[in-house]
Amino acid sequence: MQLSSRIRAIPEPAGNAWEIYERAQEMRTEGIDVTMLSIGDHDTITPEPIIAHMAGAARQGNTGYASVPGMAPLRAAIAERATLRTGAAAVAGNVFVTPGGQFALFEALMAVTDPGDKVVMIDPYYATYPITIRAAGAAPVIVKADPDNGFQPDLQDMAAKLPGCRALLLNTPNNPTGAVYSRDTLNAIAELCQAHDVWLISDEVYDGQIWEGEHLSPRGLPGMAERTIVIGSMSKSHIMTGFRLGWVLAPEQVVNAIWELAIATTYGVPGFIQEAACFALTEGDAIEAEATARYRSRRDLAVDVLRGANGLRLSAPQGAMYVMVDIRPTGLSGIAFARKLLEEHHIAVMPGEGFGQAAAGHLRVSLTLEDDALVAALRTLAGLAGALAV
Amino acid sequence: MQLSSRIRAIPEPAGNAWEIYERAQEMRTEGIDVTMLSIGDHDTITPEPIIAHMAGAARQGNTGYASVPGMAPLRAAIAERATLRTGAAAVAGNVFVTPGGQFALFEALMAVTDPGDKVVMIDPYYATYPITIRAAGAAPVIVKADPDNGFQPDLQDMAAKLPGCRALLLNTPNNPTGAVYSRDTLNAIAELCQAHDVWLISDEVYDGQIWEGEHLSPRGLPGMAERTIVIGSMSKSHIMTGFRLGWVLAPEQVVNAIWELAIATTYGVPGFIQEAACFALTEGDAIEAEATARYRSRRDLAVDVLRGANGLRLSAPQGAMYVMVDIRPTGLSGIAFARKLLEEHHIAVMPGEGFGQAAAGHLRVSLTLEDDALVAALRTLAGLAGALAV
Repeated sequence: MQLSSRIRAIPEPAGNAWEIYERAQEMRTEGIDVTMLSIGDHDTITPEPIIAHMAGAARQGNTGYASVPGMAPLRAAIAERATLRTGAAAVAGNVFVTPGGQFALFEALMAVTDPGDKVVMIDPYYATYPITIRAAGAAPVIVKADPDNGFQPDLQDMAAKLPGCRALLLNTPNNPTGAVYSRDTLNAIAELCQAHDVWLISDEVYDGQIWEGEHLSPRGLPGMAERTIVIGSMSKSHIMTGFRLGWVLAPEQVVNAIWELAIATTYGVPGFIQEAACFALTEGDAIEAEATARYRSRRDLAVDVLRGANGLRLSAPQGAMYVMVDIRPTGLSGIAFARKLLEEHHIAVMPGEGFGQAAAGHLRVSLTLEDDALVAALRTLAGLAGALAV
Repeated sequence: MQLSSRIRAIPEPAGNAWEIYERAQEMRTEGIDVTMLSIGDHDTITPEPIIAHMAGAARQGNTGYASVPGMAPLRAAIAERATLRTGAAAVAGNVFVTPGGQFALFEALMAVTDPGDKVVMIDPYYATYPITIRAAGAAPVIVKADPDNGFQPDLQDMAAKLPGCRALLLNTPNNPTGAVYSRDTLNAIAELCQAHDVWLISDEVYDGQIWEGEHLSPRGLPGMAERTIVIGSMSKSHIMTGFRLGWVLAPEQVVNAIWELAIATTYGVPGFIQEAACFALTEGDAIEAEATARYRSRRDLAVDVLRGANGLRLSAPQGAMYVMVDIRPTGLSGIAFARKLLEEHHIAVMPGEGFGQAAAGHLRVSLTLEDDALVAALRTLAGLAGALAV
């Protein structure tokens, strides 16, 4: 029996970005104590008040089909947050609640691209972008962001590639690089989108994790709200990765189109999860502040330990919960280094190659460990880099 | 800004199947006491042990990213159930856990059809089938099931239409009609699928709600396991509609293909929901039995009240939680009758037209109300039909 061509075309031809992570998981089931600095998941569980709110909502009877676009108070809370964070007024009708930011991205791509359409994305990229674009039947077009230019996107290359494309996918603060795009960069990108009549899909799930400068949403730039679709999520801000709650923030015509797609696919997000998210957004400022402060302090710590250490280079992340370590002076690829680090020292990080060619020879280290253990792991990493430096 | 052609093509050209339901919801927010017999949602909340299990799993720390194909014990429990219910051995590797049966259907369609491929489905159909097929970029091809033939599919028509199609979508026990397909019917369908090399997608979310005869899964017929994808769900069996937990049961190549699609879209189902479902499947037999007994007794009650009542006809449902009432003797369409019943008597049912042309002049009544109130509502419905009968 033959599978569809499209589903066979989804996987990355280059192979498995998750090799190290999966090997680390295997080692853990074998009883080996592996230090996990690989994926972007928190090292703490979701705060109790959020769990209690979810359980309470279920016990009060919110266990039937929930509102498909999202319950009104949640959409309103997201709109209020979006108005503040993106700098352009949003109303509940601009919000569509999704099972996770990943699905929000898929819905956005379904709404603005047809099969075969081209979508520009920046390399290094979040590991699932190319497969999500292909899952929607569109084709990724890569614009590089040079590590030696602080991982800022190459605007000349973008200007050359954008004509004829349907959409541009941005992510600032950026995963994996930690780059935060400047106002000048975003202004230039906004002009390009308008000149070439391109949709801008802006993944802003790290919008609260800013260590240098400020978060700017392209949605807030003149003339951009009508062509910008913002992807948001509770995962990183409120320690709710496992709740799978995200959203699309978009012009109402996009929201209405996604509504029909959601009826045909996920049929809404569990009502008790929506209530938990609504509580977290309206009364969980302290939770978000605490999580953010934790990552800020770990980021500072990581920069202290790694900067100037033998055999590696570092551009200090301006945002997000990762550090990109440049191990090119060791002469090893990111994959080879990550394998060595895992097998010899039981520390799991993500090889840069999993995030695109521009991140080759790098490691993405997640700041998902408490201070002492994090420092110890980073020193081990730096020691290995020093021993290998050519 | 232009939306994609494909997303604009999803909605039903005939308009809104949910008109009556939405109007009923509106009336309720206006403070009107509407009897809801419209959608297939339970009138009781999810049993406390399932909610307690979910909350406990979250509190024990299952709030991070969960296994994307589903946690091993849940996949094993689903495989065990599937082995019993479909009559063909299944292992965990045949199971992929999804956020709801609706999404399982979407993933199945993505896996076996390419854009433009044709998919045969039976009319009357569950209201979202055509939009789900179109959301996957495929094209529905309709085969009718005549109400005067107990809503069994027209096999001659199917034989004529199946050549050149990529897949056939079946649903037994059937929503909305309550028809359960016989062994002869399913054998004939299986032969057609093999003769024309067609995938069979078998929606069996009502597999436990059987009032006459027995549930037969086409997956259990000779040579069919390799070309059959079964859609399952916790929604109806364990009163868990709002949990959005379903699954695909399929050959391993399909499961592996869907895995990549899931990474690109939903990135798994919340771990605490998976744990609740695992508990319900392994220790919730009494919950399922109680829910099933309730619908069986209501179904018998409904048949007693409606059969032979003036101005309407009834084919007693062989399965599922609905009764299809034939109101053609009144001369009204299902929509006109449902509107009248809602506006004059504040009872909401689904007009047959929302489920396809073959269900025109029918009403689908959900058995989602306790006995006395259900009987009263059905008597009112029958009285209106009697008064209108020509």
